[in-house]
Amino acid sequence: MDRIEKQIISALSAGDVSIWKIIDFQDASLPEFFEKLKELKKKGLIEIKNGVVRLTEEGKRAAGEFKIRDYKCKTCDGTGYEIVKEVEKKYKEILENRPKPVEKYDQGYISIEAALRKLAFMIERGDVYGSIFIAGDDDLFSIALALTHLPEKIVAVDIDERLINFINEAAEKYGLNIEAYIQDLQKENEALIKKFDVFVTDPVETIPGIKLFLSRGVASLKGIGCSGYFGLTTLEASRKKWYEIQKMIHDMGFVITDIRRQFQVYPDDGSNFFQYQEKLPIVKKLNIKSDYNWYKSALYRIEAVKQPEPLVKGDVELGEAVYKDDESWATPI
Amino acid sequence: MDRIEKQIISALSAGDVSIWKIIDFQDASLPEFFEKLKELKKKGLIEIKNGVVRLTEEGKRAAGEFKIRDYKCKTCDGTGYEIVKEVEKKYKEILENRPKPVEKYDQGYISIEAALRKLAFMIERGDVYGSIFIAGDDDLFSIALALTHLPEKIVAVDIDERLINFINEAAEKYGLNIEAYIQDLQKENEALIKKFDVFVTDPVETIPGIKLFLSRGVASLKGIGCSGYFGLTTLEASRKKWYEIQKMIHDMGFVITDIRRQFQVYPDDGSNFFQYQEKLPIVKKLNIKSDYNWYKSALYRIEAVKQPEPLVKGDVELGEAVYKDDESWATPI
Repeated sequence: MDRIEKQIISALSAGDVSIWKIIDFQDASLPEFFEKLKELKKKGLIEIKNGVVRLTEEGKRAAGEFKIRDYKCKTCDGTGYEIVKEVEKKYKEILENRPKPVEKYDQGYISIEAALRKLAFMIERGDVYGSIFIAGDDDLFSIALALTHLPEKIVAVDIDERLINFINEAAEKYGLNIEAYIQDLQKENEALIKKFDVFVTDPVETIPGIKLFLSRGVASLKGIGCSGYFGLTTLEASRKKWYEIQKMIHDMGFVITDIRRQFQVYPDDGSNFFQYQEKLPIVKKLNIKSDYNWYKSALYRIEAVKQPEPLVKGDVELGEAVYKDDESWATPI
Repeated sequence: MDRIEKQIISALSAGDVSIWKIIDFQDASLPEFFEKLKELKKKGLIEIKNGVVRLTEEGKRAAGEFKIRDYKCKTCDGTGYEIVKEVEKKYKEILENRPKPVEKYDQGYISIEAALRKLAFMIERGDVYGSIFIAGDDDLFSIALALTHLPEKIVAVDIDERLINFINEAAEKYGLNIEAYIQDLQKENEALIKKFDVFVTDPVETIPGIKLFLSRGVASLKGIGCSGYFGLTTLEASRKKWYEIQKMIHDMGFVITDIRRQFQVYPDDGSNFFQYQEKLPIVKKLNIKSDYNWYKSALYRIEAVKQPEPLVKGDVELGEAVYKDDESWATPI
């Protein structure tokens, strides 16, 4: 058994678990996970019935005596951080009628708790005092930031007009210091270069997509000491992809200061991207609807130790390649 | 004000804080922190009296309205993980008469809670089932691992005979599956090459020291998919040093899967390296004894995506350069 197989077996050592919960308790990408599951079944170590995975007698012997629990802290869901309670009520109120994610732009939003934990983490880092650039804001994170009244300036851009209108209307109504603009990140915008202290983005998880999103973030920063935040899953980005991304980060002049696994949860609340889950490859492959918030991403923080140098400059046209590759099994087809 | 100055100011926004606690609430290395503190004082934003830092009236204006709290989860001390309670009692019992750290080898141990959280994290990753190599074990982490009876094999090495004797005696007395050997990591040992699935180490924080420790860990691994754990502070390793280290990791064929800040606490329990704190440069500079567990390190996890390739091979002789550089302000002189 390799490490991932052991990890799956150990997650079952204390009892049967839904297949979607197992996804959340292992580190492989979705295509790799699917293969491992098939292999464990073939080896006679697990059985799968109605979306529930259980150890066979042989599987139990392989798992051993020690019963593995879920060791994540229950108070903070394993994130290590509290939410910024001070802005929670207002944030929820404003987001009540948020635009629903659309397939076209591969949208999906993190939970309100995740946004308010990211906010806590950024405050702790001293990353909320200057000018902040949000590259793509289906999370509506700009609104959480603005509610603290700490940043000097917040600029949010998105390709989706609905989101920009929503943010600008909220800013107007609640007196929030945000400027929001429609912007296709494939186009370079002079007005967004070397103007910011911090960028925040949640890139699509293909190599061309990540390179583009991170480059626009990096290009927006003023210089050494500036920082950036982004999310990255293990589900749609294998360790090999992570390796390539880390090389990009280094080459752009940045050190990685934090990688906090499963910090950002995408809740299946009836409105999120799970609305079209029958179109997600992983749902088709497993042939069973999800019953657990299995889609999470790690939060990266990076900091410029050299003059930030984006890998992509000028206008580009990437088309479908921005959204899809062999690993994008949670992206609709 | 730069980011670190803002971070210090914000940590004071809710009231006066001990200088040692402030160290823990900011991200700069000790020499940088010391400079920032001087600068803030010069600018008239803070006052320092008897080791307590407070904002001046001008400092309060600079901090603004929003009162910054400590957002770390109180249940898990910001780590996101529970301890492995199942082995806690026995682990504490065994460690009761642990050897005290000695200056000569720059020793210092993490808390029992930190060790048992690291263990939880490793179990969750599926990293405790094969053979595990501990390169330097003043933390006595091999004993925590062995108490789960999950690893097939644990080999711990250290330059300090006292530790090796202690581990071997505990293994004998409690029936633990650990082999411990005296080993100076400056010497290459054929028997420790390509034999392990996982390595764990806590390197000294100079570039030559880290390169050496990580290389010995990397050399011990069997191949792709194997993983390594190590601690790294921000206190004695600036962001520039982190940047260099991350390049090393990449070049050795590894992806960084996790960087969990302040995961490992070095408790000031009367026996740890704080016993000789009057010899630590930071204590001399601040000229006040510590009153807070300010020495913490981030937990790195790395995973081989290529054949592991150590940067240091063969025997080397580094001398003092292993232990000390311009940033080692928490290392006795």
